[in-house]
Amino acid sequence: MKYSSTRLLEIFENHLAQIEMPSEPELLYSPIVYSMSNGGKRLRPTLLLAACNVFRDDITPALPAAAAIEVFHNFTLLHDDIMDNAAVRRGRPSVCAKWGNNVALLSGDAMMIAAYAQLQKSPRELLPQILEIFNGMALHVCEGQQYDMDFESRTKISVVDYMHMIELKTSALLVGAASIGAVIGGASEEDCRKIERFAMELGLAFQLQDDMLDSYGDEALLGKKIGGDIIEGKKTYLMIQAMSHADEPTRDILRYTYKDASLSPEEKIARVKAVYDRLEIPRITEQQISVRIERAISILDTLNVPAENTANMRAFALGLIGRTR
Amino acid sequence: MKYSSTRLLEIFENHLAQIEMPSEPELLYSPIVYSMSNGGKRLRPTLLLAACNVFRDDITPALPAAAAIEVFHNFTLLHDDIMDNAAVRRGRPSVCAKWGNNVALLSGDAMMIAAYAQLQKSPRELLPQILEIFNGMALHVCEGQQYDMDFESRTKISVVDYMHMIELKTSALLVGAASIGAVIGGASEEDCRKIERFAMELGLAFQLQDDMLDSYGDEALLGKKIGGDIIEGKKTYLMIQAMSHADEPTRDILRYTYKDASLSPEEKIARVKAVYDRLEIPRITEQQISVRIERAISILDTLNVPAENTANMRAFALGLIGRTR
Repeated sequence: MKYSSTRLLEIFENHLAQIEMPSEPELLYSPIVYSMSNGGKRLRPTLLLAACNVFRDDITPALPAAAAIEVFHNFTLLHDDIMDNAAVRRGRPSVCAKWGNNVALLSGDAMMIAAYAQLQKSPRELLPQILEIFNGMALHVCEGQQYDMDFESRTKISVVDYMHMIELKTSALLVGAASIGAVIGGASEEDCRKIERFAMELGLAFQLQDDMLDSYGDEALLGKKIGGDIIEGKKTYLMIQAMSHADEPTRDILRYTYKDASLSPEEKIARVKAVYDRLEIPRITEQQISVRIERAISILDTLNVPAENTANMRAFALGLIGRTR
Repeated sequence: MKYSSTRLLEIFENHLAQIEMPSEPELLYSPIVYSMSNGGKRLRPTLLLAACNVFRDDITPALPAAAAIEVFHNFTLLHDDIMDNAAVRRGRPSVCAKWGNNVALLSGDAMMIAAYAQLQKSPRELLPQILEIFNGMALHVCEGQQYDMDFESRTKISVVDYMHMIELKTSALLVGAASIGAVIGGASEEDCRKIERFAMELGLAFQLQDDMLDSYGDEALLGKKIGGDIIEGKKTYLMIQAMSHADEPTRDILRYTYKDASLSPEEKIARVKAVYDRLEIPRITEQQISVRIERAISILDTLNVPAENTANMRAFALGLIGRTR
């Protein structure tokens, strides 16, 4: 049977709800339970299950790996919030704000181990291969996070540098999820490589969309104030593209506006967005998102499966960047 | 062939030296290389190899798991140093002191993943079992660390509570190492259980010895000042035993001496050790170490292998607590 992503999400949530955590020591395990119930969109496990479902009707054997991916993803958020000193995560206090950095650090560690403990329940004969993919993916995510932190203190970052960073920080998890799903689905070596390339492009589109929405999104839909990246002076795709297109005086505006104590947050956002608009950064970004998503979907069409097997995955991919076609 | 622990250590160091780390991003991988070259005694991988060698002559298939255990152990030290705000580790700046907490946090995460990446090179058919042991062990270590942190703010800790904590924080890694070594060595289920109990007792003896040496060791041999635990008011086996044997006025001395600003460090150490001596805590501790090590060794004698197979393991166990017989 082929499942829509809505149905896959239901099946996954049902599986996740059955995973039991020890109750003691409370300060180790409570933050994990809290963190896993944060109302995330479960994109990565849904992608993993959808990838499995492209090649195989029964997705049950992929559920433990899907749980592993989601636990791992939430672990990265938990540790990222310590590094970023972030007090809020999805509208609630972050684990480090609620329990302190030491508890967040250690329960994050336990959470990564818990991810591997889920992974271990994958089909025995596939475990060596799955573990290898998972380890490579997990290291890539750490590499991406380190490059992102490196960027904070670097003055010159090219678009190529930025794309490489988000390939690691964002796409790697999607690539790993799709790859493990395809392996459990019994995909050929060739189809596995293809679905990995699909997930890579999808991840890039998703991250650029995320960067775009932070400056140009709808606050009501997003559930948060727009312009956060601009106020923090974050080096997003928009900022890096603008820097590469701007003349030197405009670059100074981009470099220093977020630090200008004489401006209100609204003025900072307006000033930087005026530069973005003048340089047509939104159009450039939208175009890049379209290129990536079209490339992703055209890869799906080359898989060695009946065309109807990829329909749900196509819908999932378009939905991820808020489109229907 | 049966190897002495000295020879196992050489073989292990040789194996470890051949493991390559990526060079980029530098701030992710340099701390791992630094951390692994810290001159540790490699007790856990040696134990793993020795356990394998009890049941099997060729220890080569156990080398990746031995590396995994050592990388994991050093990862725990790296994150522990962040939590303890520790500036020094084995006479050198700790990773967090040298690179800052964020770098230490993230490279620690990468190090845990690197441990799993080593583990993954274990014999394919044994990997599911090895991964399960490793995950259980790793969670126990986190649980032990959390209990240890919980103890800092708890006023009443029983000897039973303390032994449970060090079973998790210290013994679990030795149990995991011995268990994985035995599995790779092809030990029977029954012999695996036995060697786990051996390692559990050995770990307890080792931790009590560690607690003992911190207050009564030889500074020259130890390479550090004695009395650190007393000055920090740490709840060690000695302190907890003393609290359980002392009358109320003496308990107050044990409770408050380390916080007494009118005393020099030397005076604090002398005052607490005078209580320990009067209550015969060193004798009680030594006796407990002897009981544990004798129990450990008597378990070795019940293994279903020729007696000579356990000779090196016996020597290793005695060496661990600084004895020769």
